Amino acid sequence: MKRALISVTNKDGVVDFASGLVKLGFEIVSTGGTMKVLEDNGVHCIAIDDVTGFPEMLDGRVKTLHPKVHGGLLFKRDNPEHVKTVQEHHIQPIDLVCVNLYEFEKALRAGKPMEDMIENIDIGGPSMIRSAAKNFKDVLIVTDPSDYAKVLEAIENNQTDYDFRLRLAYKAFSTTGAYDAMISRYFADVCHDEFPDTLNISLKKVEHLRYGENSQQAANKYEDSYVQKSLLDYEQLHGKEISFNNVNDLYGAVALVREFGDQIVTAAIKHSTPCGVAIGETGYDSYMKAYEADPQSIFGGIVAVNYKIDKQTAEQMHKIFLEIVAAPDFDADALEILKKKKNLRILKLKNLDARDAKYDIKYLEGKVLVQELNTKMIDEMKVVTEAKPTPEQLTDMEFGMKVVKYVKSNAICIVKNGVTLAIGGGQTSRVWALENAIRNNPDKNFEGSVLASDAFFPFNDCVEVAAKAGVGAIIQPGGSIRDQDSIDLCNEKNIPMVFSGYRHFRH
Amino acid sequence: MKRALISVTNKDGVVDFASGLVKLGFEIVSTGGTMKVLEDNGVHCIAIDDVTGFPEMLDGRVKTLHPKVHGGLLFKRDNPEHVKTVQEHHIQPIDLVCVNLYEFEKALRAGKPMEDMIENIDIGGPSMIRSAAKNFKDVLIVTDPSDYAKVLEAIENNQTDYDFRLRLAYKAFSTTGAYDAMISRYFADVCHDEFPDTLNISLKKVEHLRYGENSQQAANKYEDSYVQKSLLDYEQLHGKEISFNNVNDLYGAVALVREFGDQIVTAAIKHSTPCGVAIGETGYDSYMKAYEADPQSIFGGIVAVNYKIDKQTAEQMHKIFLEIVAAPDFDADALEILKKKKNLRILKLKNLDARDAKYDIKYLEGKVLVQELNTKMIDEMKVVTEAKPTPEQLTDMEFGMKVVKYVKSNAICIVKNGVTLAIGGGQTSRVWALENAIRNNPDKNFEGSVLASDAFFPFNDCVEVAAKAGVGAIIQPGGSIRDQDSIDLCNEKNIPMVFSGYRHFRH
Repeated sequence: MKRALISVTNKDGVVDFASGLVKLGFEIVSTGGTMKVLEDNGVHCIAIDDVTGFPEMLDGRVKTLHPKVHGGLLFKRDNPEHVKTVQEHHIQPIDLVCVNLYEFEKALRAGKPMEDMIENIDIGGPSMIRSAAKNFKDVLIVTDPSDYAKVLEAIENNQTDYDFRLRLAYKAFSTTGAYDAMISRYFADVCHDEFPDTLNISLKKVEHLRYGENSQQAANKYEDSYVQKSLLDYEQLHGKEISFNNVNDLYGAVALVREFGDQIVTAAIKHSTPCGVAIGETGYDSYMKAYEADPQSIFGGIVAVNYKIDKQTAEQMHKIFLEIVAAPDFDADALEILKKKKNLRILKLKNLDARDAKYDIKYLEGKVLVQELNTKMIDEMKVVTEAKPTPEQLTDMEFGMKVVKYVKSNAICIVKNGVTLAIGGGQTSRVWALENAIRNNPDKNFEGSVLASDAFFPFNDCVEVAAKAGVGAIIQPGGSIRDQDSIDLCNEKNIPMVFSGYRHFRH
Repeated sequence: MKRALISVTNKDGVVDFASGLVKLGFEIVSTGGTMKVLEDNGVHCIAIDDVTGFPEMLDGRVKTLHPKVHGGLLFKRDNPEHVKTVQEHHIQPIDLVCVNLYEFEKALRAGKPMEDMIENIDIGGPSMIRSAAKNFKDVLIVTDPSDYAKVLEAIENNQTDYDFRLRLAYKAFSTTGAYDAMISRYFADVCHDEFPDTLNISLKKVEHLRYGENSQQAANKYEDSYVQKSLLDYEQLHGKEISFNNVNDLYGAVALVREFGDQIVTAAIKHSTPCGVAIGETGYDSYMKAYEADPQSIFGGIVAVNYKIDKQTAEQMHKIFLEIVAAPDFDADALEILKKKKNLRILKLKNLDARDAKYDIKYLEGKVLVQELNTKMIDEMKVVTEAKPTPEQLTDMEFGMKVVKYVKSNAICIVKNGVTLAIGGGQTSRVWALENAIRNNPDKNFEGSVLASDAFFPFNDCVEVAAKAGVGAIIQPGGSIRDQDSIDLCNEKNIPMVFSGYRHFRH
C-alpha cells in the first residue's frame, strides 16, 4: 500500500484528489484542517501524530518536522542501506506529498499586520515540499491543485516516469522559491530597505505573446508577484490580442498620462515615443488637439487618456487606424462605436494612480540596473533671463517638461497652449533633436511657442535655432558649464528661459 | 546557558565565531563536518544526535529535521503554553542558529552532473534557517559569515534588539529565496523550459551607483545570480566610477560589437545610439573610420572594440573626450597613454562571446515583458529588384543591418565600405528617420552608399528620398502590403533592393 501525505491551505479539489488516490490504493496521512475536510467528506485519514508518535504542538508550528516524515520522504528506494535504515527505525515510506502555500500571499493581499504575516509563514510545508522534490525519483510532489487530475491519471496509467516526476519537482522548487521571494520582499518593505543586497523577484507568467519585439523572438508576459497594483493593470474590453510592442508602448503612454493628475489629457504614442499630446477643456477637446498635433504619426499608434471617453470622441477615434485606445472608462455608446473596428484593442485602465512598483529595472544580459522610478518633475522654476515668462508660458513650460520626459534622449519638445507642436528625440546631438523637430513639421508656426529640453544645452546653438524658428520661451534643467552662453543669447533675443533643475534622460 | 546550533558549508570564520559564542556563555550544538572543524580547533560541541536522540541517518539527509530541534527554535518564549509544552517534551531552547548554503551554487559553477546537483540541495539547512527566522523575536539567525563579528558584538553589548533580529531574519529569508530561485532556474534548464510559469530571478547587489538615469533617481547595479558569464563582465583598469548611463550605453556598444564575430570593428555610442561604426583592416583603421564617421557625436561617448588596442589607436583616442574605452585587451603602451586621462574609464571586456543570459526583460512597473534575445540577423538575402547588388553592396548591406539593429526604431542607417555615413533613429515616422539622417550630415556624399532600414517601408517615400540623396542600394526586411510600390520605384531608379526577412525593432 502506497502512502500520500496531504496538507493544503487551498482546499479546492483536495477531496476529489484524495478520493482518487484512495481508489488507486493509497492510504492518506493528513493534518489539522485538511484532515477535517477529508474526513468530513468520507476520506479516511491517518493523523500525522500517529505517524510521528509526537503530538502536533506549539499551535501547529511543529507538526511534520520529524524523521518519521522526512525519513519516509528522503530515503533512496534503490539504496539497500537506506532501505535498511528506515526499516530499523520503523519509518514508513511516503510516496506522494501534496502541499500548497497560499496563506502568506493571502495575508499580504489583505494587508494584515506584521504579527499575522509572521504567523502565516509556513515552515513545515516548504520543508516537506523540498524533501519530496529532492527525492523526486521516488516521491511525487504535488504543489498545484491544477495538477491533481493529471497526477491521478498518470498514476492510474503507470506513467509517472522520470520526466513526469522531474517536472513536478521543478514546479515544487519554483513554488518554494517564489514563496520565500515574497517573504523577503515583505521583510525588505518592513525594514524600509529600498535596494536589498539580495533582491528576489518572482515572475508569474500571465500571457503567452505571439512574439516579442520582432517576430523571430519568442516572448511571454509576466507579472512581478509582489506588486499588487500596477499602472499597467487593465481589462481588455475588445479587439485583437495584445502584442509585446503594444504593452511596451502602452507603458510610455500611460505613464505620461499619469503625470497630469487632474488635468484632462490625451497622449498618442508610436514606437514608445509621444507623437501628439494635449490637455483640453474636455476629453473631446484634448483628443482633437492631440490628434491634430501630428495626424500622420498617430496612424497605427496608441492613444491613452485619463478621462471617460464619450461618443463624440469615439467617433473621431473611429475615423483613423489605432492599435489601442486605453482609458479609465467609456460611455456605453462610445464603446459601441469603438467596437466596430474588429481589431482595435480597447483597454479599460484600472490603476492610473498606481505607485506600488517602485523599481525601474534594466536587465542587460545578467547585469541589472535597478533604479527608483523617475517620479519627480521640476525642482524649482528658476528664471535665469532678464525677460520673465508670462503665466501662459510658465504653464506651457510645465506641460512641455511632462511630455519631453517621455521622449527618448536627447529630446526636445515644442509646445503651445497645452498642445505639442513638434517633438524631436533619440538623437546623439541635442541641436539635431531640435532641428529635426522643426524640420519634421515644416507647416507649423512656432511663433510664441515654448521649448522644453530633457537636459541642459551644452552650447548656445539650441537657443539660436529656437529663436530663428520663433520660439518664445525655453525651459531646460540647466547645469552646463556653458549655461551662461545660452543665457546671454536668450537675453540678446529677449527670450525668457527657466532652469527647472531636474534632468529627464530616458533611454 | 544559551544554546547555539551551528552547521555551515562555508567554514570561513566559524571557529572564531563559535569560540566567541562559548565565551559569551553559549553551548554549541553541531553536526558532521562543522562539528569536526570546531572540535579540532578546541571548541567543544554537543552532537546533534544527542539533542534529537535520533541518529544522523540516510547519509546525512535527515539530521536536524526533528521536533527537538524545530520545537527548540519555534516555541514562543513569551507564551506560557509553549514554554510548558517544550518542557514536557524535554525540548531545550535553541537561541541562535548559524547555517549557510553554498554547496549548490558551488556545484553549479563547477558544472556538476544532475545527480550531484540533486545531492547538493540542502533540506535541513533551509528548514532551520526558516524556523529560526520565523521566530526571530526569540532566535538569532545568522546566515552570512560577514555578520559573525557584528552578532558577537551585539550579544556582548546586549544590543540584539528587535530591529537587529528582524534584519537577520530578513537576510535569512532573502537567502532561502535566492537558494530556491537558483534551484528552480537549474531545473528550468534541465527541463528545457524557456519560459517558466514561475521565473524566479535572484539579483545580487554588486555596486552602489552614484545615481540612476538622472540624479534624482537612486540606483544600484545588480547581477542575476544564475547567469555565470555575461557580455557585460569587465574589469575596470582605470578611471572614474562607472555610472548608470555608462552601463546602459556600454551594453548597446558591446552587443553591437559582438555581432561582428571575427571582423575588426569599432563602435561609438552616445545615448544608447550608435553614432559611428566601422570595420577595418586593423584596429587603428577601424577606429579612425568610426571616429571620422561623426567626429562631433563621439564627444563624451563610449567606444567599444573587439580588438587589442595598440599605441597608435590609443593616441588617437587620447585626443578626444570619451567616457569609456572598452576592449578585450590593451597593449601596455596603449594603456599608459589612455591612463593619462584621469577620469577615462578603461574597461577590459572579459566575455565578448558570452551567451549565457538568455532573456531580454522589460520591467514595466510590475508587468514584465520577457523575450528571447534578438540573436538573428538576416533570414535570407532576397533580391527583389531588376538591378542586382554588387558584391560590395551586399557586404555593406550586411554591415548596415548589423548597425541599424542597435539604433532605436524607427531606424535608418546609411553606410559605405564598412563605415556608417549617417544614422537616424528614434522617429515615429520612417521617412523622418531617413530625412533626419541625411540632413544631420549635410557635408556627406551619399553617392553609391547603401541604406539599411530596421523595418519595412510602409510607402515608397523612403526610396524617393534615398534616390535623391544618391543612395546606391537598399536593404530592408520587407513585408509591407505596399512592398511593390517601393520595388517599382527602385526599378525605375535602377536601385538594387534586398529583402532580408528579419525586422529589428529596438525600443
